[in-house]
This record gives sequence, structure tokens and C-alpha cells, in this order.
Amino acid sequence: MTYRAPVKDMLFAMKELANIEAVAQLPGFEDAGFDTAQAVLEECAKLNEDVIAPLNWEGDLHPSWFEGGEVRATKGFKQAFQQFAQGGWQGLHHPADFGGQGLPKLIHAACIEMTNAANTSFALCPLLTDGAIEALLTAGTEEQRSTYIPKLIDGSWTGTMNLTEPQAGSDLAAVRSRAEPQADGSYRVFGTKIFITWGEHDMAENIVHLVLARVTGAPEGVKGISLFIVPKFMVNADGLLGARNDVHCVSIEHKLGIKASPTAVLQYGDNGGAIGYLVGRENRGLEYMFIMMNAARFGVGMQGIGVADRAYQRAVAYARDRVQSRPVDGSLPGAAPIIHHPDVRRMLMTMRAYTEGCRAMALVAAAASDAAHAHPDAEVRKQNAAFYEFMVPLIKGYSTEMSIDVASLGVQVHGGMGFIEETGAAQHYRDAKILTIYEGTTAIQANDLVGRKTSRDGGATARAVATQVAVTEQQLAQQDSAAAQSFAKRLGAAREAFLQVVDFVVAHTRSNPNAVFAGSVNYLMLAGNLVAGWQMGRALLAAEAGLAAGTDSDFMAAKIATARFYADHILTQVPGLRDRIVDGADAVTALALEAF
Amino acid sequence: MTYRAPVKDMLFAMKELANIEAVAQLPGFEDAGFDTAQAVLEECAKLNEDVIAPLNWEGDLHPSWFEGGEVRATKGFKQAFQQFAQGGWQGLHHPADFGGQGLPKLIHAACIEMTNAANTSFALCPLLTDGAIEALLTAGTEEQRSTYIPKLIDGSWTGTMNLTEPQAGSDLAAVRSRAEPQADGSYRVFGTKIFITWGEHDMAENIVHLVLARVTGAPEGVKGISLFIVPKFMVNADGLLGARNDVHCVSIEHKLGIKASPTAVLQYGDNGGAIGYLVGRENRGLEYMFIMMNAARFGVGMQGIGVADRAYQRAVAYARDRVQSRPVDGSLPGAAPIIHHPDVRRMLMTMRAYTEGCRAMALVAAAASDAAHAHPDAEVRKQNAAFYEFMVPLIKGYSTEMSIDVASLGVQVHGGMGFIEETGAAQHYRDAKILTIYEGTTAIQANDLVGRKTSRDGGATARAVATQVAVTEQQLAQQDSAAAQSFAKRLGAAREAFLQVVDFVVAHTRSNPNAVFAGSVNYLMLAGNLVAGWQMGRALLAAEAGLAAGTDSDFMAAKIATARFYADHILTQVPGLRDRIVDGADAVTALALEAF
Repeated sequence: MTYRAPVKDMLFAMKELANIEAVAQLPGFEDAGFDTAQAVLEECAKLNEDVIAPLNWEGDLHPSWFEGGEVRATKGFKQAFQQFAQGGWQGLHHPADFGGQGLPKLIHAACIEMTNAANTSFALCPLLTDGAIEALLTAGTEEQRSTYIPKLIDGSWTGTMNLTEPQAGSDLAAVRSRAEPQADGSYRVFGTKIFITWGEHDMAENIVHLVLARVTGAPEGVKGISLFIVPKFMVNADGLLGARNDVHCVSIEHKLGIKASPTAVLQYGDNGGAIGYLVGRENRGLEYMFIMMNAARFGVGMQGIGVADRAYQRAVAYARDRVQSRPVDGSLPGAAPIIHHPDVRRMLMTMRAYTEGCRAMALVAAAASDAAHAHPDAEVRKQNAAFYEFMVPLIKGYSTEMSIDVASLGVQVHGGMGFIEETGAAQHYRDAKILTIYEGTTAIQANDLVGRKTSRDGGATARAVATQVAVTEQQLAQQDSAAAQSFAKRLGAAREAFLQVVDFVVAHTRSNPNAVFAGSVNYLMLAGNLVAGWQMGRALLAAEAGLAAGTDSDFMAAKIATARFYADHILTQVPGLRDRIVDGADAVTALALEAF
Repeated sequence: MTYRAPVKDMLFAMKELANIEAVAQLPGFEDAGFDTAQAVLEECAKLNEDVIAPLNWEGDLHPSWFEGGEVRATKGFKQAFQQFAQGGWQGLHHPADFGGQGLPKLIHAACIEMTNAANTSFALCPLLTDGAIEALLTAGTEEQRSTYIPKLIDGSWTGTMNLTEPQAGSDLAAVRSRAEPQADGSYRVFGTKIFITWGEHDMAENIVHLVLARVTGAPEGVKGISLFIVPKFMVNADGLLGARNDVHCVSIEHKLGIKASPTAVLQYGDNGGAIGYLVGRENRGLEYMFIMMNAARFGVGMQGIGVADRAYQRAVAYARDRVQSRPVDGSLPGAAPIIHHPDVRRMLMTMRAYTEGCRAMALVAAAASDAAHAHPDAEVRKQNAAFYEFMVPLIKGYSTEMSIDVASLGVQVHGGMGFIEETGAAQHYRDAKILTIYEGTTAIQANDLVGRKTSRDGGATARAVATQVAVTEQQLAQQDSAAAQSFAKRLGAAREAFLQVVDFVVAHTRSNPNAVFAGSVNYLMLAGNLVAGWQMGRALLAAEAGLAAGTDSDFMAAKIATARFYADHILTQVPGLRDRIVDGADAVTALALEAF
């Protein structure tokens, strides 16, 4: 089964929904218009389809391997990674000053979807490296930047994020790793970090660990955490690699999925202390880590979309091929490919509509991120930043939760064959399950949505989103088509439910936090459903216009059909979610603790 | 993590919902009252908790093993299986004439839930053997019954169901295996069967394959299929085992889950023909197979409930143990066990409410099955049969679909640890995915629900269920408690949505089958949600009465809390499902085939 990158759908979303031509008017992105995007996406598609996707099953069958402190990546991964980095993909949206391409996040987002669809395990390595680059760009010294970033961009080295410890998962306040200041300004780092993705491997010459630890004497809690660079090999003044640093992989995990991606336990300082360099200021580590984390959360959302699309493509191919039973409407005389059966169509449409909706949501958010960084007008930057920040938990939470359902449907379409590992559908089901967990579980995303993104500004950003949704609703209602009319109705019901929930959240976050957080994940799912639906509504409008203009009629007709399905089958869940949140909070905490 | 059988909840459902005292008044079940049930369940719990559950992870880690045509079960399975059969559990609900215990299905159902919760892979072997026994009881000759059933009951031999072939999965009309009549009245069977659960193993002396094949010259399609007994070893006239028959395992599958259960490819007749014996009459095989299948479908529903309960118990244990972050309401000064966090409570309550609701639904249906078989009044038998038949696709379809969501939540509660295989949560997520596929996918269950169970009688049985639901609604509305009032409201909305869907299904199954079958799985999920909810409503009434009477107050309070959660969080999904079915059919089939 070959992966085909959905270049056409991505370009449609960029042009019609994310307004790439406006992004191309931002200072620094003058060359990043539609034509550039098209050229980049087509090139990216080739690499992912031809080189990276074929390694996906291989990586599942022969995961990365730990022996004697070293980790060997699945055969073929190293060469593919070098090809990836040398092709410029690691540096796609990083500054040209450090060897990057300087393209907007909008284009980068589409590219990382492809790599994740091709091979989720593989894509994690560049994803974490991106995080390290972002942190250094934000808080690194000039010397740190020039020492590390070019090597990270050209694929000589890779990056990791070291947050989690056995007792400190979602709660980083519990981090215990410590850093002792040395006379030369460096630190000696001690501690155990777990769940370190690509924490040890042989795909690159060096690994740049970004590590949260407490400087001796630092305050307790999150305000005493600092961020350190701890390279696997020391870097000499001439840029060449020196001695092996005192950080060692002691084991990797036996996981449900993403098996090619080694998940390392790293031991710091067992032989005198790992040499580390402070990034930014002492005790500000969490802030810098959030920069990495926010980029990574968006990236994990794209992983969900990528996994979902791959599962969809695989299911479609099987459904076209597998012949079983006569169609219920008697339209064919004998047994037909199962894609003719209505329930198979329902499953495929569900997979497709979720995927396209989340993709549209993510690309629109990526364009807002570009404007938030590069727009000359501070007020416009601020609005876009607020919108993008509101979107991050939805993209991370909703796109990954949907990817589990989509991957499960993908197995289901295959029937008994889906349960056989060699078919490949089951891998997506296994891979998807980590996406709702790492870089902050769905509940952590929901806390972020409730706290920082909704309550903090009294619901202003949330209501501003609803106001934009209402504009789309009115545009839909003015169309003649039944699809648009029906969409307007479903979107309106969903928007009203959303506003009721926002009122509930804003009113009770302080006075009754248990009630609000009992519904926080449902709120996230409702908001994600609405926003992705809103983008599908905008897509419907654009597709009807395109159809009227005679542009690519088959594509436009397909988009209309998919949008309609989204409205009738996915947006229709929203009122029930509202009921659960607004009326169902007490039921969540009513059971006595000892009764569980 | 130890499994604890939910004996108390099972006994509550048997007494208050399934009316076990009425079952004990049926001829033949005079000894099968509450006290018997309690004694049997407690004994069953011991075996499953102490012997079978500890083998679960072992079986996942060291699956059954194929070498040279033989399959070796995971270490410990053979001894456990012999203990299981010799303890009388294989014969629990089979006739005493053949060595069984002659207990009602109501008690048996609870027992198989336990075995499936303890070890799903293990439980499949007795489940398939039950099917073989049922088929022989229904259609076997006196000689066939006396030859095979006692040995199947005492665990000397096991049984299998051989339906699927590479080209014949859901569509049994495509079966090609053939049977050539011999002069002595036996047949020679030729063909390839796939996906044969416990099709080869070393846990018993012999394996009794029940095989669908076409007698030479039989009609095409389902009307030309006959059922055969093909023993692995021939059985001599004295009952001792004779020559090896010409049926051989050529491989077993590499599967996503239920890894300890070998899934065999069986080759019949490569060396002259496997000797087979016709069961019942020629060309009536599908009818007999449906007897096995119906029993097996109910059993798979119990598997879903068992897997869900095990996932729930594991998640609760972890949530009590894992300390992370301070409660949002500030009720504890520092980091607390995560069970204090509202979203963890929401996940656990979702798992619990689904599991208890489906258990109640299944046990009520099992009691109806007992009445359908044993009640002296033909009219009562008929009503109970219609009710039970209506329930089978709901129990199979809804309980297994929910088990996937429950197992996924179980992983989620564990956070990153859930993704590590050694934790054990991931196994349930992998195991659960087969349940919506084998013994008829959810779509096949939904076809059955639409066709044979709803449209065929013009919706009469479905509406009779709704009438019974309305009675519960009125009883709830007459209670003073907020929980009962709120439940009545949610149940009423769900019942009305159900009736609208039944009208839609009955009106359009013939005239617009695509529209009906586009919503068939949603109809199944809606009906399952309603019926399980109805039973939770009845449980709420019983628990309020129990609480008022001062009986086991903690249990009753917990049941009320769980019922309330079901109403507010699960029944609330029903109106959205109605919208999808009634308004969303066109969207399912609107996309052009070539556009996928």
C-alpha cells in the first residue's frame, strides 16, 4: 500500500481557508506564495511517498534495538534521515541565517503531516529536533545558537526534550533532576529522565538533549526549574566533537506502537555529572520548555491528521479491492467490492471528514501563527496570537482523539484482515494511541483550554471565534443549495452550544472548578468539533464557488459531499456534548472514592 | 494487578433486573435460584481470579506457537483448561444427560464474563466448544451427541467453528469447501478454512471441527451449504481415538491481540480427503451454523463486557496509586492520587457506566433466553424469544464497540505508562479490537437488527421494547429524587429518538435500502445505548428502594451514582445519533466512488 500525499487538499486549504496569499505578504515570507507552496509540497510528497513511507512497516516489524547502551535504528532509517535533512526539510521553517529555508509555518505544517502519515516513528525525530531549535532560537546565547542550530538543521545532530521523570509526568513541579554550578559557568547535571523520544540512536553524530533540572538551592515547584543543553558528545571550540558526556541510555521501552522510535530512559551523571549549559536564565526553564512544547503540541496534532489520513487511504484501497456480498440496493448482480456497501461508505466518510476537517483547522491556525510572528501591526499580531493559542489545544487534543477513532474504523473496514498485523491497518491503531498522551494528555490540553485560553480572558477569544463562525453561518444560509442550508443549521446549533459551554466555563472555573474540569475534555472535543466544522463550512462555500466557476469540478463536488457529511454526522454530536458538560458535571464526581 | 470478579454487581442484576427467581420457576431450573447463583458465581470467581487471570499477560507475551503443523498453547494454559473443564465450567449450562450442570443461561452468562475478563484468549476455547455442543444438541444424531458431547463437556476434546474462507468472510454464500459423499454414509471434505480460533492446539486430546461445505452438486449460494463434523482424530466405535484425519493446520496468524488464542489456517483433504459426518440434513448447514453463531454472538458480547471490566479495574488501581498534581479544587495541599482529578473520574465513570449498563442488558437478555426455551406457555416463550433475538445484535454490537472505547480510556488513565506493554492496559486495547469483527462485524449485527429483527415484523418487537422502556420512565418520574427525575427525562428523549428511527427503518428498508443501511450501525448503537440505559434506569429504581430499606447502602449509592452518570453522559448521545440516521443518510453515499 503506497501513501499518496494529499497535496491537492492541502493546497485547497492553504488557498481558500488559510489565505496563503496574505501570508506571502508578511515581511520575510515574500516568496512563500501559492506557487512556492505547490512546488515545496510536491517535492515533499515525493520524498515521503518514495523513501520514508516504505520504511513504516519495516520499523514496526523491526523496531529500534537497544544493546550495551547503544540504540540502533531500524535498517534504512539512518539513510532516510540524512536524505530528509540534506533535502532541507529539517530546516524548512527555520531561519536562513542558520541554514534553514525560512518558510512559513503554514507550509511546514503540511510537510510534517506528510512525514507523519508516511512514518510516524520516523517523523518524531525531526519533530523533537524542531523543538530544540525553537528553544535555542528563543533563549539560547549567540554562541549556543551558532554552535548547535546549524548542525541540528543539517541533520548532523538531532535534538530531544527531557521533561519526564518517574514521579514527574504531567506534573513538572515534581522534577527532581539537579544541576550543580561549576566554576567555569557550566553545570553538572544529575538525574533520571524517562520517555525520551529518540533519546539515543545512531542516525546522527550527536544528540543535543534539552533537559529540565533544578539548580542547587532553587525554589521548589515549577519556579525552580531551569533548562540545560546536555550534548551526548561534547563540542570543542572548533566545532568538532569531543569527549563522551555523562548521559547514558540504560534501556528503551517495549511499546504498543511507534516502535521504530526509541523511547529512552536516560541516566544523567552516574559518573561524576553530565556537563550541561544553562539556556536563558535560571529558574525560567518551564517558560522555554513551553515554547518547545507548544511547537511540539501543534506537531502532535499533525501526527494525528497524518495517521488518520494514512489509515483512510489504506482502508479505501482495501474497500475497493475486497469483494464481498451483493449491494443491498440490488444495483449489482453479484458480490461487489465492499466500498459499495453503505456502512463501509459511512466508515470511510467518517474517516475522511474528520481528517479533512482537522487538516483545515490546523492549516488555518498555522497561518495565524505566521501572522502572529511576522505581521507588522502589533494589534494584528496580538489577535492572531490569541487565536493561534486558542487553537493549539484543539489541534493537539481533537485531532489526536479523532485519529484513534479513525484508525479503529480503518481496522474495522478490513474486517478480520484488519486484525492481522501484516495488513498494516493495526499499526495505525497502535501508533495513534500515544498521540492523546504525549506532549500533554488530552486532559492537560483541556486544562490549558479552560484555564489559560478561556477563563483567563473571560471567554473573549472563545467568543471571538464564535463570532467568526456566525459569519460563515450567514454566508452558508445565503446560499441556495440544500447542502449549505443544512450546514448552516448544524453549525448554528453547534455554535450556540459552544457559547453556552463557554459561559458555563467562564462562570464556574473559580467558583466550582470540579464542575468545569469534569467537563473540560468534553469542552475540548466540542470546540474542536465546532472549529473543524466551521472550516468545513468555509470549504463548502469555496467549493460551491469553485464548482460554479467550473474549476476542478470533481474535487469541488467531493469537498461539498465531505463537508455535508461532516455537518450531518459529526457536528450533530455537539448538542449532546453540551448536555454532558452543562448538566452532567455532578455525575462525574458523585461516586464515593472508595466505591470505585 | 489482580482481577476481582464483580460478583455483587452480577447478583444485583440477576435479582433486581433479570428476575432470577422467575427463572428458577421454569421447568428444569428449579434449583437455579439466587442462592445457587451466588454459590456458583463465588466458586467461578475463585477459579478465574486465581488460576486463569494470572495467565493473561503471560499469553500475550508468549503467544501460542506454531511449528511443524502443531500448535503449542502458552505454558500453563493446558493445566488451567483441564481444571476449568473438570470443575464443570464447560458443561455449566449443558444438559445433565451429557455430563453438564443444566444451569440456566443467566448464570452461565455471568460466568463467561468472568473468564473473558480474566483471560480473553483462554475463554475463546470454551466459547467455541459451547457452539459445537449447541449445534450437536440441536441437529446431531443420537450417536453423534453421545459420541462427542460428553467429551466436549469434560474437556477431553474441544470444538471449533469453520466458516470463513479467503473469499468468504461476511458472505457465506461464497463458501467453496466441498464434501464428497462416500458409500459408507460419510463424506470426504476438501478446502481451506481461515481464521479458525483454537483450530489447532495441545490443550485437549482431540478437536471436533464443525465445518461448512458444499455437497457435490449442491445449489449455489447459502442454500447449498451443509454442516459437517470433522474430528482431528477419528473416533473408534469404542470411543477411543483412532487415525489422524486429513485436516491440518498450515499456519497461525500474527495478530494485534488475543495472541494466546491460535488463529489457524486449516487445510482439509490434501491427502485424499478429510472424513466428515453430516450434521442434520444436507443444505441446512447455515441454519445450524446460526445456532452456534447466535450463542457465540452473545458470548462475544460478554467478552466485550469482560474486557471492559478488566480495563476498568486496572485503571482504577492505577488511578488510586499514581500521585500527580494537586486537585483543582484545592482540597488537598499537595500532589494527590490521580483519582482525585475530575477528568480521571470522568474517564473511570465512563468505563464503569458502560460496563454496568451492558452487563445488565446482557443478563436480562439471558433470562429471556431461558424463558424462551423453558417456559411452559408457548406465547410467553415466543415473546421472550422475540425479545432475546432483538437483543443479540445489541449485546454483540454495542457491548463490543463500547469495549474499544473503554479499553482506550483505560490506556489513557495510565498516561505514558499505558503505552508501555508491561503495564498491561494496552493488551485490553489490542484484544478489544477483534470483538467488533469476529462472529459478524458490527455492520453484520446491524444488518441483522434492521432486517430480521426490526423490518421483518414491521417494528413490532422494537416498539414493544420502547413500551417497556416507557413503563420504567413513568416509574422514574414518580420518584422524588433528582437522579430519578433527570434519568426519566434523558430516557424519554432517547426512547422518542429510538421510535423515530424505528419508524424510519420500517418505512424505508425496502424502498430505500441504501438510506437505512447507511444508518444501520448508528441504529444499533442508539438501540444498545437505550436498552442498556433502560436497565440502568431500572437499576436506579431498585437501588433507591434498597437504599430506603437500608440494604447495602454503599452499593446502592454507588449504583445510583453510576446510573446518573449513564443518563447524563451516555444517554445524551442518543438524539445526535437519531439526527445522523434520519437526516444524514444521503451524506453517506453522496461522494462519487472514484473520489475516495
